[in-house]
Amino acid sequence: MGEKISVRSFFYHRNNLYCERVKVNEIAKKIGTPLYLYSKNSICNQYKSFKEAFSPLSPLICYSLKANSNLSLLKILKNLGAGADIVSLGELFLALKAGIKPEKIVFAGVGKKEEEIQEAIRKNVYLFNVESSSELRLINKIAVQFKKKVNCNLRINPDIDPGTHQYVATGKKESKFGIAWDKAIEIFKNNALPQIKILGFHVHLGSQILFPEVYESAIKKVLETVKKEKIKLAVFDLGGGFPIEYEKSVPPIKNFARAIIPLLKELKIKIIFEPGRYIIGNSSILVTKILYLKRDFVIVDAGLNDLLRPSLYGAYHRIVPLRKSLEKTFVGNVVGPICESGDFLGKKRRLPVSLKEGDFLAIKGSGAYGFSMSSNYNTRLKLPEILVSKNRYKIIRKREKYEDIIK
Amino acid sequence: MGEKISVRSFFYHRNNLYCERVKVNEIAKKIGTPLYLYSKNSICNQYKSFKEAFSPLSPLICYSLKANSNLSLLKILKNLGAGADIVSLGELFLALKAGIKPEKIVFAGVGKKEEEIQEAIRKNVYLFNVESSSELRLINKIAVQFKKKVNCNLRINPDIDPGTHQYVATGKKESKFGIAWDKAIEIFKNNALPQIKILGFHVHLGSQILFPEVYESAIKKVLETVKKEKIKLAVFDLGGGFPIEYEKSVPPIKNFARAIIPLLKELKIKIIFEPGRYIIGNSSILVTKILYLKRDFVIVDAGLNDLLRPSLYGAYHRIVPLRKSLEKTFVGNVVGPICESGDFLGKKRRLPVSLKEGDFLAIKGSGAYGFSMSSNYNTRLKLPEILVSKNRYKIIRKREKYEDIIK
Repeated sequence: MGEKISVRSFFYHRNNLYCERVKVNEIAKKIGTPLYLYSKNSICNQYKSFKEAFSPLSPLICYSLKANSNLSLLKILKNLGAGADIVSLGELFLALKAGIKPEKIVFAGVGKKEEEIQEAIRKNVYLFNVESSSELRLINKIAVQFKKKVNCNLRINPDIDPGTHQYVATGKKESKFGIAWDKAIEIFKNNALPQIKILGFHVHLGSQILFPEVYESAIKKVLETVKKEKIKLAVFDLGGGFPIEYEKSVPPIKNFARAIIPLLKELKIKIIFEPGRYIIGNSSILVTKILYLKRDFVIVDAGLNDLLRPSLYGAYHRIVPLRKSLEKTFVGNVVGPICESGDFLGKKRRLPVSLKEGDFLAIKGSGAYGFSMSSNYNTRLKLPEILVSKNRYKIIRKREKYEDIIK
Repeated sequence: MGEKISVRSFFYHRNNLYCERVKVNEIAKKIGTPLYLYSKNSICNQYKSFKEAFSPLSPLICYSLKANSNLSLLKILKNLGAGADIVSLGELFLALKAGIKPEKIVFAGVGKKEEEIQEAIRKNVYLFNVESSSELRLINKIAVQFKKKVNCNLRINPDIDPGTHQYVATGKKESKFGIAWDKAIEIFKNNALPQIKILGFHVHLGSQILFPEVYESAIKKVLETVKKEKIKLAVFDLGGGFPIEYEKSVPPIKNFARAIIPLLKELKIKIIFEPGRYIIGNSSILVTKILYLKRDFVIVDAGLNDLLRPSLYGAYHRIVPLRKSLEKTFVGNVVGPICESGDFLGKKRRLPVSLKEGDFLAIKGSGAYGFSMSSNYNTRLKLPEILVSKNRYKIIRKREKYEDIIK
């Protein structure tokens, strides 16, 4: 296993927040805020725990780049053996640049453009997760030009409600994703497109799925149909959606493995998983400075352009001071500097009364869909990203400059 | 008035959508989609109609850069005589670069950073709209260093419900904006900060305010208090919030002027307005291509990373084909390529059944909070912006390149 698990990722020591062996406060002062801070230890641990939990299936673990596609982080994951789940040409470039081999790359998405399909075929990605028969025909047309056989999985819409936010529930019948059951079976059985090799099915049910039973019932649904229809699968891609702790605790990954493995082990087919949030979500904090205290508002220098999740999904992120205090607390709203009432990071949070202007806060769980969804709204600069490994840290993305955005 | 009003901005001619005298289809084919397209004529007309409506007050019209801060558009507005409402250092740079004089720039925002205040004082902006007494003290401290007197308006929180989306209602008591009435009056009367010159008040009630009465009651509330407290205002900044037509028609700007002017005309003080959306909102369309038709989904190449408003606010934008059809229609969901169910541009829209993959659509009213809120989510490139003026068009922002985002 190489590294020891015992290194801690984010923790208080003598009331100061540390990332591994570095005091977060020192980084904040040196680099300036706001900034995204990542723990290499956490990334490695999360990846390894996932791999270990599902080891009886020896799955291909394709890290989902949409969660966070920083090149330095991708290189860490590549070195751990990860493949890539990509959804755009940009993500293809990044995955390849990180050194991830094409045979470990799967290409998903409802809106693949012709030039994206061309480039992915040119680069020999392993598999397309296909969302419609139009798309299948387009891939075939391009594959003919390249004189290549192309592997495809049909993304099926299992019509299962994962009990999650409507914006991230992707496996329901009324969602834009996937191919309806009967249609998928018909395509699978009667595929006559000469350059298309249909390997199996892809299912992605949503994000932050809290119940292993959701996976269980989706898999059973697929396997029963496969049996009934006498279809032979070579690959089954189960997508991602494994939860992490934001506010409340979630079942450990082992519980999901325990529900999933028995259903798939005997099939002896290739299993693919696409975790993103599970690996990177809690491997990062967003460090921000208190600019002003006003009434019950704690106005900080990070806003919805830096971290959109609270505004877009009503997502909860824990907010803690870099300097822990055991004093009395008050209930405040942590809000950003953007000129919108929707610009908040946390509502009604308990914070120490000793907090003052100039102090720092950490917004936890900001690794997934944090930087990746950030914008220049209010003509603000995109944040720097810092990676900590043991007692060292390095800048893995520089703070944007005004020249970059005023071009 | 210079230009003739009779040039039309967006309209169908022989069933093809035009922007002024240019066929939108030709631009889409030449530049590629998605793209933002602006009509200079529309921008000028909106600015002029605003100026004309309020001419009895001879107000300073400070265009609100947060709506859209493209430099070429700012230069058009500068040439029409506009000032600037800015909320960040980036917006200050852009306003000055566009040639807007510092004496026409007002600096707002709840989270002004020390270095932003420094730069704004160094550049002699006309006025700070101040959000708290901490901020006032910070401005004074910096002004002392610069040995300058600094003009400030106190942003008051009039506690008025504008009847709009909770995310854009900014004048309510429980919002993070402004200073409470009693506190503002106390500061105004007893200001002892040597470098601070308090000129008056700033009120901004929210966005898309549909009823002139909302402004009327806010202004009355201010004027009554001013009278009662024997305060002498030199400046009154009424902010923005004037509505444009997205789905349903809205009262014309003249109606707002008719409600506002009589209350302020006799005061003979300087009036400031900060329109943003009113000027740029309907001066642009987002042009997008249909990638796939699937069930009742129209999957296009623009997504929530390009236009966030539908997902973030549930905002309605009209969607029309570039080639008008008088045939039968169907009801479809126009969705983007992003891997989220929240990635939609329009739900349950009536569109011609003749639409096919490869056809183009225009998302209307995309000029304000369109490009300015866009991101690189899913490692997608930010869109190009094209400005049409009569029979010519030019690229006023190039499509981003992968090199730009993979640095």
